[in-house]
Amino acid sequence: MTDGRLIGVDWGTSSFRAVLMDGVGAILARVERPAGLLSVRDGAFEPVLVEAIGAWESCGRCPIIASGMVTSRTGWVETAYLGCPAGPDELAGALRRIETPAGRRIAFITGLACRNAAGEPDVMRGEETQVAGLMPAGERLVVLPGTHSKWVHVADGRILRFRTAMTGDVFAAVKDHTVLRLTTAVARTAPEAFAQGLASGARDAGAGLLGKLFRLRAGSLMGDFPAEETAERLSGLLIGTEIAEARAFAPGLGGPVVIVGGEELAARYQAAFDRLGIAAETAPADAAFAGQFRIARSAGLI
Amino acid sequence: MTDGRLIGVDWGTSSFRAVLMDGVGAILARVERPAGLLSVRDGAFEPVLVEAIGAWESCGRCPIIASGMVTSRTGWVETAYLGCPAGPDELAGALRRIETPAGRRIAFITGLACRNAAGEPDVMRGEETQVAGLMPAGERLVVLPGTHSKWVHVADGRILRFRTAMTGDVFAAVKDHTVLRLTTAVARTAPEAFAQGLASGARDAGAGLLGKLFRLRAGSLMGDFPAEETAERLSGLLIGTEIAEARAFAPGLGGPVVIVGGEELAARYQAAFDRLGIAAETAPADAAFAGQFRIARSAGLI
Repeated sequence: MTDGRLIGVDWGTSSFRAVLMDGVGAILARVERPAGLLSVRDGAFEPVLVEAIGAWESCGRCPIIASGMVTSRTGWVETAYLGCPAGPDELAGALRRIETPAGRRIAFITGLACRNAAGEPDVMRGEETQVAGLMPAGERLVVLPGTHSKWVHVADGRILRFRTAMTGDVFAAVKDHTVLRLTTAVARTAPEAFAQGLASGARDAGAGLLGKLFRLRAGSLMGDFPAEETAERLSGLLIGTEIAEARAFAPGLGGPVVIVGGEELAARYQAAFDRLGIAAETAPADAAFAGQFRIARSAGLI
Repeated sequence: MTDGRLIGVDWGTSSFRAVLMDGVGAILARVERPAGLLSVRDGAFEPVLVEAIGAWESCGRCPIIASGMVTSRTGWVETAYLGCPAGPDELAGALRRIETPAGRRIAFITGLACRNAAGEPDVMRGEETQVAGLMPAGERLVVLPGTHSKWVHVADGRILRFRTAMTGDVFAAVKDHTVLRLTTAVARTAPEAFAQGLASGARDAGAGLLGKLFRLRAGSLMGDFPAEETAERLSGLLIGTEIAEARAFAPGLGGPVVIVGGEELAARYQAAFDRLGIAAETAPADAAFAGQFRIARSAGLI
């Protein structure tokens, strides 16, 4: 239907990235803009998109596929969540396709909403596409660390279930808006401090967090560690807690945990797994675009 | 040495309270000021005190006893922490006594710093005096809920050990500075929602908090509960977690848990204990002044 090229757009709350892919999914060009959804006024999404990908003139009629919070209530097109299990084929079947007034064809990938055994819901928008770009063999646990870290149980390329931990969001709130702010303003990198926080978090299967948090205050008051290590200890404590919670969620899945994320955060989690003696590997970058390509192919867009 | 009367001052970071007590510790008069330590400029503590208790002219030479953060680094007189175990007699023995230029005699009660079996420190300033005002018979678990809730293991009127949970501080930070702020701005009282949060927090011995927090977001997104119940659910979740942590800290102490605190918070914790089927009783108000009286008497101030 076209020359096989595809434009992929990863549009989140605070970032915009787009790539031009060839017929086998290789990335030919890329753009990045500080044009997260929150910065778009009056629903003017198309002008932002056109400005960003305008340089790819030869691809003016190429299909576009988009994922991320762009399909949430505050995005361009709100789509209903899909349930579990779901993989590239289910996501392809649930694409929401529009044609803009200017004649651009865009397919939006929706997110997932799934309930655990207790009936409690969890949601994701964007991560399902990153996971679709991985498709590790067999059963694996995949982590996408961040503000709201996703832990995903994947089997044969499909998401069976997942669990979100509010790690990054809680880290920022506790660091800047509790008594710990008195000692986190000046922070220094300290791998051993991070490791000690990590061990504290992982202890007792992740229980005791409200007490462990206060000990970061008491410890610096009592001179057990330098105040400027507090932020690193807090980061370790929360990541250690998150990992202990994930082990309870998915004990004994085969193969190393797969880490998907930006370079800095992926390295922090890789270090955490190493310290805790848990096998882990970091996935190649651009999982989101690989997932978009796979879903587009499954849907016959290209 | 005097007519047996005593002035008690409970001076915290954000509040100032003082009472005039007779020779048996009964409260004859009281004042309250919004003059917390943070509001005192240039170390001008004495003028604040004199203004507040100035109306008690007949007691111009009465001994004064003070407790709370007034003995911290940001207070009037910084005192070294006392270790555990400690009760009224040990606190009396550690009083720091000063005479001001204007001739007022003030005795400051210091706080406690104690380490748990793992060697981790915890601290309190002010709560030791409240506990000294209780002295329940035998072994008991006492909770002083708040920004930094204290759980205190008391035996024969002395503090054996204690544990702080950062509950109130984390509640405010998470409510106002994470994604949950989108649904906590408008809050409504909802006892059933509080109870459900409580049950979630207490589950799994308090583990899983980072995931449970995100489910408050997912639950309102999925319409499982009205958005305006989020704050109550969050309050329940954190208090339930705190109580589960405390049970691991001090399992099976004899007798009901003793709640010490302001009316509203004490009622919230009493409701939490009732819901969880844990025996609890709320202590009479003014435990701090009762403790000051007891310590003053042990020290021979009156």
